[in-house]
Amino acid sequence: MRVKYEEMKDEFKRVLLKEGFSEQAANEAAKIFADNSLDGVYSHGVNRFVRVIEFIEKGYINPSAVPEKVSTLGALERWDGNLALGVLTARKCMDRAMELATDYGIGCVALRNTNHWMRGGEYGWQAANNEFIGICWTNTLPNMPAWGAKDSRIGNNPIILALPRKDGPVVVDMAMSQFSYGRIETTRMEEKELPVHGGYDIQGNLTKDPNAIEETGRVLPIGFWKGSGLSILLDLIASVLADGNTTNDIGKFDDEHALSQVFIAISKEQLGNSSELEQKINESVQYIKDSEPVSSDTEVYYPGERTMKTRIENTRMGIPVKEEIWEEIKSL
Amino acid sequence: MRVKYEEMKDEFKRVLLKEGFSEQAANEAAKIFADNSLDGVYSHGVNRFVRVIEFIEKGYINPSAVPEKVSTLGALERWDGNLALGVLTARKCMDRAMELATDYGIGCVALRNTNHWMRGGEYGWQAANNEFIGICWTNTLPNMPAWGAKDSRIGNNPIILALPRKDGPVVVDMAMSQFSYGRIETTRMEEKELPVHGGYDIQGNLTKDPNAIEETGRVLPIGFWKGSGLSILLDLIASVLADGNTTNDIGKFDDEHALSQVFIAISKEQLGNSSELEQKINESVQYIKDSEPVSSDTEVYYPGERTMKTRIENTRMGIPVKEEIWEEIKSL
Repeated sequence: MRVKYEEMKDEFKRVLLKEGFSEQAANEAAKIFADNSLDGVYSHGVNRFVRVIEFIEKGYINPSAVPEKVSTLGALERWDGNLALGVLTARKCMDRAMELATDYGIGCVALRNTNHWMRGGEYGWQAANNEFIGICWTNTLPNMPAWGAKDSRIGNNPIILALPRKDGPVVVDMAMSQFSYGRIETTRMEEKELPVHGGYDIQGNLTKDPNAIEETGRVLPIGFWKGSGLSILLDLIASVLADGNTTNDIGKFDDEHALSQVFIAISKEQLGNSSELEQKINESVQYIKDSEPVSSDTEVYYPGERTMKTRIENTRMGIPVKEEIWEEIKSL
Repeated sequence: MRVKYEEMKDEFKRVLLKEGFSEQAANEAAKIFADNSLDGVYSHGVNRFVRVIEFIEKGYINPSAVPEKVSTLGALERWDGNLALGVLTARKCMDRAMELATDYGIGCVALRNTNHWMRGGEYGWQAANNEFIGICWTNTLPNMPAWGAKDSRIGNNPIILALPRKDGPVVVDMAMSQFSYGRIETTRMEEKELPVHGGYDIQGNLTKDPNAIEETGRVLPIGFWKGSGLSILLDLIASVLADGNTTNDIGKFDDEHALSQVFIAISKEQLGNSSELEQKINESVQYIKDSEPVSSDTEVYYPGERTMKTRIENTRMGIPVKEEIWEEIKSL
C-alpha cells in the first residue's frame, strides 16, 4: 500500500504526542520520520517507528529530556544528548554547528549520550538545504568484524557529506558495511542474492548469499581493510571529541543507545565564491553524469540524485509501506 | 638493497638544493620523502622522487614559490599553494590548521593550486605527533570510473584520519580505489593476482587479474557505489572550500598539478579529557586487537600499527630500494 506524506506525518505525530512529547517536538520528529520515508529510507523511517516507540517505553529514550551544552572551545562545542530522541538532538546539533560556522567559518558539535539518528543523510540534507556544507558521522554498537577478524567488534558507523547546489544538493550517506543487516534480511526474504559480495560464509569465502552471511554474522566492510580502518577512526574520534561512549562501550549496554556523534558545518555563502566556481561544480557533476555507462540501459547518477527522484515519486504516489506495519502504527 | 634513513635523506637534500630549494626547504622536503619511505610507502617516497624532480624541471612545481593566505573566516582559512612543492605546502597547511584549532577549538585550511602531497598519511601523523586529531583529503586527476561508468571521470581522492595516542597514534590513510595503479602494476610484474577484486575485465566481470584491469582501466572504488560517491563529495567539497580546481579541471591539464586539498585539526589537549577517557580509547583499541582472527597465523591490527612496525624495521635494517632507482637518484 501507499500512504500520503501528510497522513503518515500526522500519524507519527499523534503517537509521539501520546508518548509525552511536546506539540513542537512531536511535530518536528514526525516530519523527520516522514521525510526519511519519503526519501526512500524506509528502514529508518516508517519501518523503524514502532521500535523507536518501544525504546521510549523501555526508558532508553526520554521524551522530556533536553540536550545541553557541556563545554565550548569557540568553534567546537561539546553537547550531551541526555538520551533525548536522537533525531531531534541531531537536528539541533547540526543547527548549532551551522550557527558556529556562521561565526567562525567552520563549526563543530560533538555529541554524547544521544540516541539513534535514524537516517544520517537527514542532517546532510538539512545542512545543504540551508546553504551549508555538512559532514557528520555516528558510532554504533559492534555489528561488523574488523579486517582479519571473525567476530563483530567494530560498528558500521555511517558518515555523511553534503554539498548545497541549486540544481540539487550532492549528498552521500554511507555506512561502513557493504550492506545493512536490514538489506541482507530483505534479500533473504525475497530469496535473492545480493548484487555484490556482502560478507563471508562459514568456510570463510566471500558470498552474495544472505543466508550464509546471516549464519556467520561476518558482514563485509566497504573496501575490506579500508572500511574497517575508517570505521575505527570514526568511532574513536567521535568518542574523544564528545567524551562519549565508544562502540566497545555501547556493546556492553542492553541495547543500542547513548551513542557519540560529530556534526561539522561550513557556510557556503560566506565563502563568497564566484558564479564561475558554481558553474565549475555544475560542469563537474555533468561530466560525471556524461560518463560512458556500463550498459545501454543504465544511467550514471551523482550522489543524492536518486533520493530526489524517489522523493518526487513518493510525494506524488504516496509512500510505500507494508500493510501490517501501517496497521501496527495506527494501533499505537 | 637497503639504504640507511640518514643517507637517503641526505641524498634527497643534495638534489633538492641543486634544484634551487633553500637550505631549510630542502631539509624539510628531504625528511618527508625519507619518512614516507621509512614508513613503507615507497611509491610516494623514494620511488617517486625522480618524477618529482622531473615535475620541477617541467615547471609544474616552482621551488621558489611560497604559499599564501587568500582569505579568512576565522577558524577557516583559504590558501593558495602557488604551485610550490606539494609536501612542504601540505605540512604548512596542517601546521596552520593546528594553530587555528588552538585558537578556535577546530581549525580548517582549504588549499588550492597545490602539488601532489605524496603520502597523505604524513599530515595525519604530523597532527597526531603534535597531539592533534587530524583529518585531511586531496583531489586528483580522473583515474577511476564513477559507479555505473566505464571511463575514468572521478579521482581516487585519498582521505586521512588520525588520532594521537600515547601507545601509538591510530591513523587511516586510504584512497577511494581498492588498489592504486602502482599496486596493480607491481602485482602484474610479479605475475601474481590481487588479494581481492580490484577492477573489471573487458567482459565487465570483476577480476583479481592485474593485466585485465590495466587493459580496461576500470579500477574498483572501495565498496562499489559507496567509494564512488565519497570520492565525488571529497573532490567537490575541496574545490568549493578552496575555490580551486575540481578533478574534472585537473584532467584537462597536461599532468597532475594545481590540486585542491583540505586540512582539519582539533587539539586533543584542549578538549581536557579525563584519564578515564584515555583508558577507554586504549581499551577499545585492545578490544579490536583481541578479536578472533580469521586464521591462527594472522593478527588483527589497528590502523597505523603496521606502519609503526615497518618504521622500526626500516630504521634498523635500512630502507628497501631497487638498485636502479637508487642509482638514478644518485646521478641527479
